[in-house]
Amino acid sequence: MSSDNHSLDARRVAIVGTGLLGASVGLALKAANFPGRIVGVARQQSTLDAALARHAVDEATTDLMQAVAGSDLVIVAVPLGGFEAVFEQLGRCLEPEAVVTDVGSSKLAVMEAARRHLPQPSRFVGSHPMAGNEQQGPDGAAADLFQGKPCIVTPEADTDPQALATVEQLWRMLGMKLVRTSAEEHDQQVAAISHLPHAMAALLVQVAAELGGWDIASTGFRDTTRVASGNPPMWADILMANRQPMLAALRTCRDQLDRLTAMIEAGDRDAILALLEDSRRRRDAWLGDDRLSTL
Amino acid sequence: MSSDNHSLDARRVAIVGTGLLGASVGLALKAANFPGRIVGVARQQSTLDAALARHAVDEATTDLMQAVAGSDLVIVAVPLGGFEAVFEQLGRCLEPEAVVTDVGSSKLAVMEAARRHLPQPSRFVGSHPMAGNEQQGPDGAAADLFQGKPCIVTPEADTDPQALATVEQLWRMLGMKLVRTSAEEHDQQVAAISHLPHAMAALLVQVAAELGGWDIASTGFRDTTRVASGNPPMWADILMANRQPMLAALRTCRDQLDRLTAMIEAGDRDAILALLEDSRRRRDAWLGDDRLSTL
Repeated sequence: MSSDNHSLDARRVAIVGTGLLGASVGLALKAANFPGRIVGVARQQSTLDAALARHAVDEATTDLMQAVAGSDLVIVAVPLGGFEAVFEQLGRCLEPEAVVTDVGSSKLAVMEAARRHLPQPSRFVGSHPMAGNEQQGPDGAAADLFQGKPCIVTPEADTDPQALATVEQLWRMLGMKLVRTSAEEHDQQVAAISHLPHAMAALLVQVAAELGGWDIASTGFRDTTRVASGNPPMWADILMANRQPMLAALRTCRDQLDRLTAMIEAGDRDAILALLEDSRRRRDAWLGDDRLSTL
Repeated sequence: MSSDNHSLDARRVAIVGTGLLGASVGLALKAANFPGRIVGVARQQSTLDAALARHAVDEATTDLMQAVAGSDLVIVAVPLGGFEAVFEQLGRCLEPEAVVTDVGSSKLAVMEAARRHLPQPSRFVGSHPMAGNEQQGPDGAAADLFQGKPCIVTPEADTDPQALATVEQLWRMLGMKLVRTSAEEHDQQVAAISHLPHAMAALLVQVAAELGGWDIASTGFRDTTRVASGNPPMWADILMANRQPMLAALRTCRDQLDRLTAMIEAGDRDAILALLEDSRRRRDAWLGDDRLSTL
């Protein structure tokens, strides 16, 4: 089997869930000249029709069993609330040698579901491509959605090395920067840099609803709240699935809020300035790390 | 005197502070074919040299008295921490009929300083153009910085109507959308839609510093924290000057944080979903209000 950067060890790929991410995987595989067949599965025929119209998949079916028959790579791209049901069905129809991965934003919950239901959990490799936009469904899909973005993979001690290689090949082929970490660490980190910012964006909108200011809100408000226009059911699932790390991130944020409040109450300009300077320095160092060009 | 939308009742304009905003006012006045003379004042000769090099001002001086002599419109664009000193000096050298405005992000503190020091407080009109970027100094200035953005003016009961007309003409000429409000209301509202989002952006960076995740942070983190790369001394001044409304906004935000935390603790997906949907609806309604095209 080939294992260079430009080919994927799979002849038939099943994408379970052809929404924004699933359809984008299909488009990106085709843009990368993947020579195999791509089959899309969804519950709604309209979702499949849209994915077919975008040429994100070669064939489409609402029957999971039909889709995974003959597929050597299965990519689960359903909302987090749907994983349990999909894995349960996969447990009954997966090809013995098939490799399974996903795009879920919380990894411990997904890995536990995989262990409970899949016949060979060692051939499941958790993935989290850090890509998206405020749109939803296949209409918002884009072949370059993953280009240059980070993708976390969370192999376990017993993960099959060949399955890991296949999954890492997939994301590399789509232009992603791979980051390996444990599921626990992933969940803590996405709570900090994705789920908490999402929650705060939604809460900033609530504060504006209470205190007013819509007429004078400008680009700062637009950008700090951008992600609050994301898909609410998807994000409700994420906050539920990543509950414990999210609660820890909320506690950390509350402590920070109390710290700043105390500085302002005390009129301690030096402390406020030091906090703002530290945040700017850390953010600029992160952005300066060659990320401005790709994000 | 002419008072149509395209001309400004001033022959000589003094811009006190030729940083990002001050120099942008100069560039925008020139782009709008203002026929009068523009003089820039700053403490640092290097700031003046940069403003002159950008052709943001016609002449430049470090001597405030020299700049305001003969000026019928004075625009104070120094950081909030510098207002007291500037107004005190203006009180000694302002032309009797001169109109004074400013660009400060907190209005009660500025209006109080104006009342304390200016010979004719009725000819001072507080302004807050909601425009900026992460840069600072005249090098970041742009003629279109104000175009399409909101500008709040905060006239009082005793404000001279002609002074108000002149100041509103200024911002209209620069392409801004005028919003009149009281200084109190302004301060509460900017705390909600500008100063709190700024503080939260800085705090989200602090949370990431505690919990990790820099390698996997992507566009959501970049946008929700964008304003944390803003000028720290300027923002420290703002949080100090707008202290009481800022503390109220922080309290409101903390209550919202506690509310969401309780929902996640209780595993109440319906409540989380309702919150996210409400925030998305409010934000999209705000953006849909013809703002996407101009912000």
